[in-house]
Amino acid sequence: MTTTPAQTGHRGPTAPTSLTDTGLLSPVRAGTPAEAATSDLAWLQAMLDAEAALARAQAGLGTLPHRAAATITRLARADRLDARALALESRETANPVVGLVRALSQVVAAEDPAAAEYVHRGSTSQDVLDTGAMLMARRALTLIRADLARTAHALRELAARHRDTVMAGRTLALQAVPTTFGLKAAGWRALVRDADRRIAGVLDGGLPVSLGGAAGTLAGYLEYARIDAAGNRPDPGEYLDRLVDAFATETGLARPGLPWHTLRTPVADLAAALAFTATALGKIAVDVQSLARTEVAEVAEPGAPGRGGSSAMPHKRNPVLSTLIRGAALQVPALSGALTQCMLAEDERSAGAWHAEWALMRDCLRLVGGAAHTAAELAEGLRVRPERMRANLSLTGGHLASERVAAALAPTLGRHPAKELLSRATAQAEREGRPLRDVLAGHPVVTDRLNTAALTELCDAESYTGVAGPLVDRALGGE
Amino acid sequence: MTTTPAQTGHRGPTAPTSLTDTGLLSPVRAGTPAEAATSDLAWLQAMLDAEAALARAQAGLGTLPHRAAATITRLARADRLDARALALESRETANPVVGLVRALSQVVAAEDPAAAEYVHRGSTSQDVLDTGAMLMARRALTLIRADLARTAHALRELAARHRDTVMAGRTLALQAVPTTFGLKAAGWRALVRDADRRIAGVLDGGLPVSLGGAAGTLAGYLEYARIDAAGNRPDPGEYLDRLVDAFATETGLARPGLPWHTLRTPVADLAAALAFTATALGKIAVDVQSLARTEVAEVAEPGAPGRGGSSAMPHKRNPVLSTLIRGAALQVPALSGALTQCMLAEDERSAGAWHAEWALMRDCLRLVGGAAHTAAELAEGLRVRPERMRANLSLTGGHLASERVAAALAPTLGRHPAKELLSRATAQAEREGRPLRDVLAGHPVVTDRLNTAALTELCDAESYTGVAGPLVDRALGGE
Amino acid sequence: MTTTPAQTGHRGPTAPTSLTDTGLLSPVRAGTPAEAATSDLAWLQAMLDAEAALARAQAGLGTLPHRAAATITRLARADRLDARALALESRETANPVVGLVRALSQVVAAEDPAAAEYVHRGSTSQDVLDTGAMLMARRALTLIRADLARTAHALRELAARHRDTVMAGRTLALQAVPTTFGLKAAGWRALVRDADRRIAGVLDGGLPVSLGGAAGTLAGYLEYARIDAAGNRPDPGEYLDRLVDAFATETGLARPGLPWHTLRTPVADLAAALAFTATALGKIAVDVQSLARTEVAEVAEPGAPGRGGSSAMPHKRNPVLSTLIRGAALQVPALSGALTQCMLAEDERSAGAWHAEWALMRDCLRLVGGAAHTAAELAEGLRVRPERMRANLSLTGGHLASERVAAALAPTLGRHPAKELLSRATAQAEREGRPLRDVLAGHPVVTDRLNTAALTELCDAESYTGVAGPLVDRALGGE
Amino acid sequence: MTTTPAQTGHRGPTAPTSLTDTGLLSPVRAGTPAEAATSDLAWLQAMLDAEAALARAQAGLGTLPHRAAATITRLARADRLDARALALESRETANPVVGLVRALSQVVAAEDPAAAEYVHRGSTSQDVLDTGAMLMARRALTLIRADLARTAHALRELAARHRDTVMAGRTLALQAVPTTFGLKAAGWRALVRDADRRIAGVLDGGLPVSLGGAAGTLAGYLEYARIDAAGNRPDPGEYLDRLVDAFATETGLARPGLPWHTLRTPVADLAAALAFTATALGKIAVDVQSLARTEVAEVAEPGAPGRGGSSAMPHKRNPVLSTLIRGAALQVPALSGALTQCMLAEDERSAGAWHAEWALMRDCLRLVGGAAHTAAELAEGLRVRPERMRANLSLTGGHLASERVAAALAPTLGRHPAKELLSRATAQAEREGRPLRDVLAGHPVVTDRLNTAALTELCDAESYTGVAGPLVDRALGGE
Repeated sequence: MTTTPAQTGHRGPTAPTSLTDTGLLSPVRAGTPAEAATSDLAWLQAMLDAEAALARAQAGLGTLPHRAAATITRLARADRLDARALALESRETANPVVGLVRALSQVVAAEDPAAAEYVHRGSTSQDVLDTGAMLMARRALTLIRADLARTAHALRELAARHRDTVMAGRTLALQAVPTTFGLKAAGWRALVRDADRRIAGVLDGGLPVSLGGAAGTLAGYLEYARIDAAGNRPDPGEYLDRLVDAFATETGLARPGLPWHTLRTPVADLAAALAFTATALGKIAVDVQSLARTEVAEVAEPGAPGRGGSSAMPHKRNPVLSTLIRGAALQVPALSGALTQCMLAEDERSAGAWHAEWALMRDCLRLVGGAAHTAAELAEGLRVRPERMRANLSLTGGHLASERVAAALAPTLGRHPAKELLSRATAQAEREGRPLRDVLAGHPVVTDRLNTAALTELCDAESYTGVAGPLVDRALGGE
Repeated sequence: MTTTPAQTGHRGPTAPTSLTDTGLLSPVRAGTPAEAATSDLAWLQAMLDAEAALARAQAGLGTLPHRAAATITRLARADRLDARALALESRETANPVVGLVRALSQVVAAEDPAAAEYVHRGSTSQDVLDTGAMLMARRALTLIRADLARTAHALRELAARHRDTVMAGRTLALQAVPTTFGLKAAGWRALVRDADRRIAGVLDGGLPVSLGGAAGTLAGYLEYARIDAAGNRPDPGEYLDRLVDAFATETGLARPGLPWHTLRTPVADLAAALAFTATALGKIAVDVQSLARTEVAEVAEPGAPGRGGSSAMPHKRNPVLSTLIRGAALQVPALSGALTQCMLAEDERSAGAWHAEWALMRDCLRLVGGAAHTAAELAEGLRVRPERMRANLSLTGGHLASERVAAALAPTLGRHPAKELLSRATAQAEREGRPLRDVLAGHPVVTDRLNTAALTELCDAESYTGVAGPLVDRALGGE
Repeated sequence: MTTTPAQTGHRGPTAPTSLTDTGLLSPVRAGTPAEAATSDLAWLQAMLDAEAALARAQAGLGTLPHRAAATITRLARADRLDARALALESRETANPVVGLVRALSQVVAAEDPAAAEYVHRGSTSQDVLDTGAMLMARRALTLIRADLARTAHALRELAARHRDTVMAGRTLALQAVPTTFGLKAAGWRALVRDADRRIAGVLDGGLPVSLGGAAGTLAGYLEYARIDAAGNRPDPGEYLDRLVDAFATETGLARPGLPWHTLRTPVADLAAALAFTATALGKIAVDVQSLARTEVAEVAEPGAPGRGGSSAMPHKRNPVLSTLIRGAALQVPALSGALTQCMLAEDERSAGAWHAEWALMRDCLRLVGGAAHTAAELAEGLRVRPERMRANLSLTGGHLASERVAAALAPTLGRHPAKELLSRATAQAEREGRPLRDVLAGHPVVTDRLNTAALTELCDAESYTGVAGPLVDRALGGE
Repeated sequence: MTTTPAQTGHRGPTAPTSLTDTGLLSPVRAGTPAEAATSDLAWLQAMLDAEAALARAQAGLGTLPHRAAATITRLARADRLDARALALESRETANPVVGLVRALSQVVAAEDPAAAEYVHRGSTSQDVLDTGAMLMARRALTLIRADLARTAHALRELAARHRDTVMAGRTLALQAVPTTFGLKAAGWRALVRDADRRIAGVLDGGLPVSLGGAAGTLAGYLEYARIDAAGNRPDPGEYLDRLVDAFATETGLARPGLPWHTLRTPVADLAAALAFTATALGKIAVDVQSLARTEVAEVAEPGAPGRGGSSAMPHKRNPVLSTLIRGAALQVPALSGALTQCMLAEDERSAGAWHAEWALMRDCLRLVGGAAHTAAELAEGLRVRPERMRANLSLTGGHLASERVAAALAPTLGRHPAKELLSRATAQAEREGRPLRDVLAGHPVVTDRLNTAALTELCDAESYTGVAGPLVDRALGGE
């Protein structure tokens, strides 16, 4: 379990452990794919990918030697830079790109000084950082979608299997009227698919390259293009279209309508989709916890050796997966809200609103990534206990059918008097510990209107599930 | 507790002023259309509209007399109820619908006791409140779209008129490189249109009726349908489809995939669209404030007699419209984030998460409605001062072209040395209060490479606007 | 624009109902004392009180006629102004004080034109609005403390009465080890008292007058003092001290260290105390809901005729008080967080951050006020069911003592093997539906170490409450 | 600048760089003392310190061998454990302490198997994690206080030196009336000291040990104490007092009133103090940015070689320190608000609310730590330009004195007419580009009342600073 420093020697590139982001404080994402996809090194590599793509795009326009673009692309590797040094240096410039450009230029210059002149040609820090962020977001969102698909598939199975598994519907903490577990699972799945649609919407055109130059006019790019295409001054409009298209093609990202240094639509949309996904999964988690309570025990989380153990209590099998998911769902909306507020970015580039985004965005992506991964495991392994559902349904001796009996009496007794009668009868039944049916059978006003068979049938909560079955069919039938 | 219209007659169209919501603490929405559309009475009426539509829908299915539906529709008027009494009574039930149903039933019964039996037939509080909320949201969003359209139109005019009005681009609080006011206005407009698209998306299918009954199975509706269609028991699935379709048709709202008592996608989407809109408008406001500063004075808010006055200083013409908008933009993301967190709604209906939504949703709608109305006035009347823009651009004696000069020197001097040279030269120019051009003209390393005409041209910041013009063309050309 | 009392006479104590703030969307505060104390009219009156106090303070310094101060004080009555007109007018100036000053001046001038000259003498909008806000906050906080005292008192009674009422302690949704209801109630009370201390801290010096003049230098006050004390120019420092002291005395508010137009410590502290209080009460609410669940049924909310009724289900007695409190607790932290962000107020007075505070502050106060009022009712009437607690404790057949049995075996068996053994035994007991004691009695490794009496005693969960009793004693003994 | 893996070899204990938390996305804290104090390893060590202190406390009570406590203390070193393995393992138990206990037990057992039996004796995960969190918070808060002290000291110097440096006071983005830079700096210092007081308040009794056992009754501790003190059964109340006191003494933390597993006062208070501090520093940052704007240029950030450089623009000296601080201030309130919401922790221990706290708390501490460190550097090196302040003051030709002239005319002209006259005169002056004095000199209504000398003096904005000087004296005189 524990290891000495010597034992970790095989792990390749290393850093001081005091800087290790172990996930210790965020188990929901520890070791999940989204964690690796959103690490500092992943973001650094994404920024280097942006630099390389920019060089290739400019080469495609003939304003930069193809050979230089190839060299830059080959050498733009995060493991060639000292990320910690870049971070420390970034305190001098408020962002890590100034140092990144210097370091990348040095790496390239060591091999080909001429190529080094073309690193970050005409560009600005924000173009590189934002494009890198979009690349990183795309990778993380793709992973999230895969886990949402697994989750939705498992929930579909649950919904289909339990289409007619009756259980107590609960409202304001109390048993209300019956429902089915199939309908509950179908609802969870609907939320997961809603989340997936929102993320798919972001992936479909919502992650653009950033290409604006120092203040959003692309003036630096154009100036270098003029210099580099000596004697062949490009038409500004044509150059704009060609450069943005080429950069979009090289990165696989979308082409933006305008430079978005302080038009933060992509970030706000990403934040909204992630908050939605986190809380959609969080809804499932709070439901699982509600049903897993010792006194309810209608579902249990998937077991595994050691899973759910307590440091103190031998008998505990804690619902850890839902706990991790709910923990994430309590964090992401706040982070997402802060991201949305960064829309208030003044001028052509903000002195602070932009800088606040980076960690928030990364943390949103990895928390949601962790939660989705955890939700897939939860959904795939959830244990459902129909016998407990039935037992709980009968706990109240038929109260869950009171709405139905009232409806049956309403036409002849009047709706309000019928409801009042049932209110008194259920209170009496609870007080005396008798089934509602028996109490009602003692009321002439009831027996005058309903014979024994009808009363018994009306009081049978298990048959009072409305259109739960057709709702499941329709919810699953769509695809 | 409840009162008939006759009893409330003395209150007529009035209420104690101690209960008046004057807008005193929220000038951004005082007197705007969205304020009236989101008042307590508007919400109450929307809930009554939901009750009436439900009755008509049931009548259409033949399970409720058309005459009763007509009576209910005619009498479901907010001015017949005592809203304050309903509010006070709602403390006993945690929501206002229980009282509303009782009060509406009494109003109807006073005229047609038989019809009163059909009020809220088979329904539940949340169906009525949520459907009413969606109706209210639709009205408010429609008003917001109208103001966003006005705003976008005015910004389009500004962008076109000032396509080539050069000004300083500002990044991290400092003048950076030139841009144009047209590009800035085009960017503002792009944000406004992004906001409008998100709201349009909500209006297009995102505002569904709520129809679930007590716990989302529609059991109460189905039971009454069975009773009311005596001997002609409806098929559950067919009944479900017909009732939901009819309710959607009667309200003009969308048909939901599933009852959404605790599947809060519509609320989360609405919250996200409103936070986006508020902060999109807020971005415009912070920019206007930045440009309106005494020392910058490049734009001024539209004047009006008394507008912008201070209680102390006779000379002040405060940028009040942008202040109101920014004030709203600082509130809405927080309210919206709280709404998103209400997605964590446990069980079939939540004991608290639902109840937290109402005021948050209303406040979001009216703050955004007020901000949009204010933004339209701001955009339509904004005064632009090209001469101040030009004057500010020349403040630094050409520093804004330093990037360009460095680019011009890079091919022969090397990019890094060129940038270093310009760093030193601009520092020297600032220290000595001389134009950058003059300082550079004293450097042989510069004059060896650039003749006087070239140097002068390169130092002319006004011509260094990159592709600002084509960007404006493309941004406005789309539609 | 402004109106005299005579002109508003037809509105008298009433206003159009379309403007009525009924509380329909916020039942938690409908009709509570805090609602009235924080109404628009209450705030308006508080601002008028600030104006009157300022006049009296200046009169005390001899720079304003006592008779004018008396007239201003007498006429500074909210019912003499048209609050709605002020609100509408405030859109022109971004705050309601400019109009308020004009309207108050007219009211005073109608009676004593000379006195009207002294209204708002040397002052600025923010001094009046902020001082009014502090007055209003003081009134609301005082009401909140009264309700917290009621709540704490009731919880003390519950804790004392149930010092030894054993119940299941629950962790991560599952029964863990036993605790007592007394300890739980003592914990709730501790939180309520923590909240009260934080509010008391704000009341004790945390609500200062605002007195800065246009930009925080009191220049206007000093200038008028020089003019009004003709020939007797006051020493600036002495004048400062005397005026601030006099204003503090007249209002009963604290004397601030510096003008705080953009040093928003008082607002941030108020926001923090209110968020704390809301969530402290919210913790009680979620616990009550957890214990009130149909399957748990260990507590019930206080009943009242009609209380907890559903619009659909006759048998429901919803936990409405805890629902209202939790609903408030889900809103206030977001509003409070937005208030805290308003600390980022630029310059001498902010163009937006200040304006965002007003509605947020008022809503925080009234939501917390409503929640505290509701919590007092909940605590005073909470019904505790020791027999249900005991029944639930025995549900698992002794699992809650597994920690204790493991501890007893640890010295001879080793701690880890002992815990493993108990893990297996509890799983077996659950699987076979047998008491843990019986299962353990079949393990020689257990019976070799523990005789029957010891095993039986160890498995008796009811006696395994640790130091719960002494903890209650100490928690209640403090006062 | 860049380094190869081989070059980093000297850095001692290492981890895969893909897990390195470099600070790349959070420059505000990269390399600051608070970053190291809040690293994963620091938290891990703090939890181990808690385990060791617990063992020593139990040894002091005679229920655990001193020798075992000494061994546990000696071996409870983070570098002996594999933090990453613990993090991955924590997904099975939802917290890292279960694995930590196992790993620590193995480390101890390897040396002294008997001592290993006493690791985590009677304890529970949350006691260890929360006590560790308090230890970590104490270290970080102490660092923050040191940086706040530096900041306050530097601001005191600035305030004293510039007591009488006149500048434009700005309200709602516009020049309003004069103020002094000394008063502004004194205000900043007041906020820093307010923040320091709130943090000191947390350090003074607000960071308690966590000691509750599985469900807050200390039953496990007591049971082991009974076993370990064989034949000498401790009195529960006395044992409680002695154990809590001993644990508090060993850790140096406070003794709590009650176990606080779900009574989260310490976390909420910490969160509030950190949000306050972040936004207090953020206020300074937005002011610095406002004053550093190219067109204002009244202050400049401290320079350093390479500081403030842009990746594109050679002339830029970006205000990077204030940018970093503001970036932090835009994040912390959201994180803090989410922490406050975790107060809604159900039952004896929450399934999610607790787990959401860890990363939020750590991020708040290190963001505020980074911001405080950065603020100290900013305050100590801020460059103030009195000549620019004076120049800007004269930009408007005397408008900033309009309030004073109006006051001077009020006694004879009436206050309202006087203000109207000045409104017109300042508008005329601006329109005609003339000094206000000259315009007024052309109005007989003015010259009838004020002679030339008086008018000139009144229009001299520089002398219109009210009591700014005495305010500075009083603000600094306190200590």
